[in-house]
Amino acid sequence: MTFFPYLLCLSSLKDFALLLRNGKLMSRYTLCICSHFEGRVELFRDLIGDINFSRIVLSNSNPAIEFNSVKQSGEKLVLLVLGPLGHDAIKFLCDDYKKTTEERRTKWIHSISAGVDWYRLKELQAEINGIPFTNGRGGFTSVLAEHVIYSMLYFNRKTWRLLASRAEHKWDPFNMIELRGQKMGILGYGDIGQATAKLAVAMGMEVTGVKRSAPTANVDELGVHVVHGDAERDRVIRESDFVVNILPGTEETKEFFNKERFAMMKPSAIFINIGRGITQNEVDLVMALRNGVIAGAAVDVFAEEPLPADSPIWEIDNDKILVTNHSAFLSDGFKIKVAEWFVKCLKEFGTPEFEARCIRV
Amino acid sequence: MTFFPYLLCLSSLKDFALLLRNGKLMSRYTLCICSHFEGRVELFRDLIGDINFSRIVLSNSNPAIEFNSVKQSGEKLVLLVLGPLGHDAIKFLCDDYKKTTEERRTKWIHSISAGVDWYRLKELQAEINGIPFTNGRGGFTSVLAEHVIYSMLYFNRKTWRLLASRAEHKWDPFNMIELRGQKMGILGYGDIGQATAKLAVAMGMEVTGVKRSAPTANVDELGVHVVHGDAERDRVIRESDFVVNILPGTEETKEFFNKERFAMMKPSAIFINIGRGITQNEVDLVMALRNGVIAGAAVDVFAEEPLPADSPIWEIDNDKILVTNHSAFLSDGFKIKVAEWFVKCLKEFGTPEFEARCIRV
Repeated sequence: MTFFPYLLCLSSLKDFALLLRNGKLMSRYTLCICSHFEGRVELFRDLIGDINFSRIVLSNSNPAIEFNSVKQSGEKLVLLVLGPLGHDAIKFLCDDYKKTTEERRTKWIHSISAGVDWYRLKELQAEINGIPFTNGRGGFTSVLAEHVIYSMLYFNRKTWRLLASRAEHKWDPFNMIELRGQKMGILGYGDIGQATAKLAVAMGMEVTGVKRSAPTANVDELGVHVVHGDAERDRVIRESDFVVNILPGTEETKEFFNKERFAMMKPSAIFINIGRGITQNEVDLVMALRNGVIAGAAVDVFAEEPLPADSPIWEIDNDKILVTNHSAFLSDGFKIKVAEWFVKCLKEFGTPEFEARCIRV
Repeated sequence: MTFFPYLLCLSSLKDFALLLRNGKLMSRYTLCICSHFEGRVELFRDLIGDINFSRIVLSNSNPAIEFNSVKQSGEKLVLLVLGPLGHDAIKFLCDDYKKTTEERRTKWIHSISAGVDWYRLKELQAEINGIPFTNGRGGFTSVLAEHVIYSMLYFNRKTWRLLASRAEHKWDPFNMIELRGQKMGILGYGDIGQATAKLAVAMGMEVTGVKRSAPTANVDELGVHVVHGDAERDRVIRESDFVVNILPGTEETKEFFNKERFAMMKPSAIFINIGRGITQNEVDLVMALRNGVIAGAAVDVFAEEPLPADSPIWEIDNDKILVTNHSAFLSDGFKIKVAEWFVKCLKEFGTPEFEARCIRV
């Protein structure tokens, strides 16, 4: 995957340092940063050089070597992770799980990304048990929600036709489809789903969120119908004009959107994936689009990224597909957002707000 | 202009008839429908054949002839107008302005369109004085508001680049601009402006509406800054990321957006016109786009419609212009909306809600 932007995201940590300089909140901790992006991880050191951690240690290839001195010294630490190497870093630094929480060296793990599937946390249950674990979701929610609104309007207003008519100098008024009154179904109704739903409700849409666990109410504070269970989930897939896939990438969700699922959708429906690429079967998606099983798809994530140049996805026309490049969350304000979110989590460290934000695996 | 869809808009008047059948609200009135769309106006008769007016009379070329029998008979009437011929119809049927309101034949004039500039009402002040005059704005607000959101996202998410990269099979992640936090300035802050502002506020934008008259509060119930006066208007033009033009088409607003106004805008700003084409100087607009004076424009209305095939507007690239064809309001639900709005006005005829909706000229 292309994650260069992530590597630049810490420029605002200087603000963070400024915030902390007098507070000394973290001055007794070491900050361990682990990312697998070779050759660029040095950027981190420059960017966060004056932060008020006791010291900063970086890892970009082998955490067992690069973090060994930290482990041996008995320092307490905060671990920032990004990408698959994070798994190794957590495994290595959190192997003291037989000690009490107080005695353990790792005090907090923060994932720069919103998705945490690449850490394979299920294999690390013992290691992370009792350690607060947060992710970058707060930095991505609003821009991803905008992307969903954009994707819907892209299709409903037949963007390809507008552009073609302009190129032909052709006056071509035609009916568009208004979002107001249409149905959105969200699979994976968490933070990003809620931010999306909030906008969709404001646009006058009827929104249903599908949750893994039983909801406490049928309609939440946003005015969104909240459902759970396979039967309700399938009903939402069948009835929605827009099926928004924000499922996490796990063994259970792997290729959830396959031939059978696309066949359940309305022929006029649009599939939107801003979650994880592995949750869709791309051969089935291409077939569903080619055969008119569904009307269109806005796809930001793919099983293999970068999407290979010979993928049949590239061959689908603009009236059926809107391809973004795992970039729906990338905005000019992105770096600031990610840093602000980290600072927010840090400032709230140990409070009930912080606790509520921690991921349960 | 291309108005075929207007002519189909009355299909839902059968629902209207159903609503009225027992009420007989209008059974003592004649419904006069005037539109200049030759050859198609017959559709009206078929579509509204069983409506509970005492009778329906159509005009599509010369109201003075086609409505003459109505005028001579002394019938009371409701007048539905669309397009420039509406001017002649009003002039002809409302010439009894020396009588009392009670005695006058025309009880209500309703414009199917939201815009009323083509009726040249200033020349008809005596004729329409005292006659309730409503327009179709309620049927257009939400779909036009969606169009503005669409236009902004079209530019902020660099739609042309997404489509080009797909065509080239090129994995091309790039930063987009998030709407959240950007500034929208609305010139002509009426119903459509408010519907637009509501969505923009929900998207996290900072919105300012420029009104003709002094506002009662600095911030309205939507959270929109409301200003008036030339200095404030110019400030809004200078500071906005998106300048939304919903000015009515009048002598005063003619070519308001000209070279000087575009030069006031930020080089990064986008001009959006969903009002009237005559409020923009199109030569100046083309120059502003070509020379980078402004970053882009989403234009739905033009001084001459259909936009002539040799207009230089057509030659501007997709990264600088989004052309729609006076069609931003055209949706699949449009016919129903227009009819629903007419029915709503009719049901409220004579109530304070109806009075509040009447246009003051």
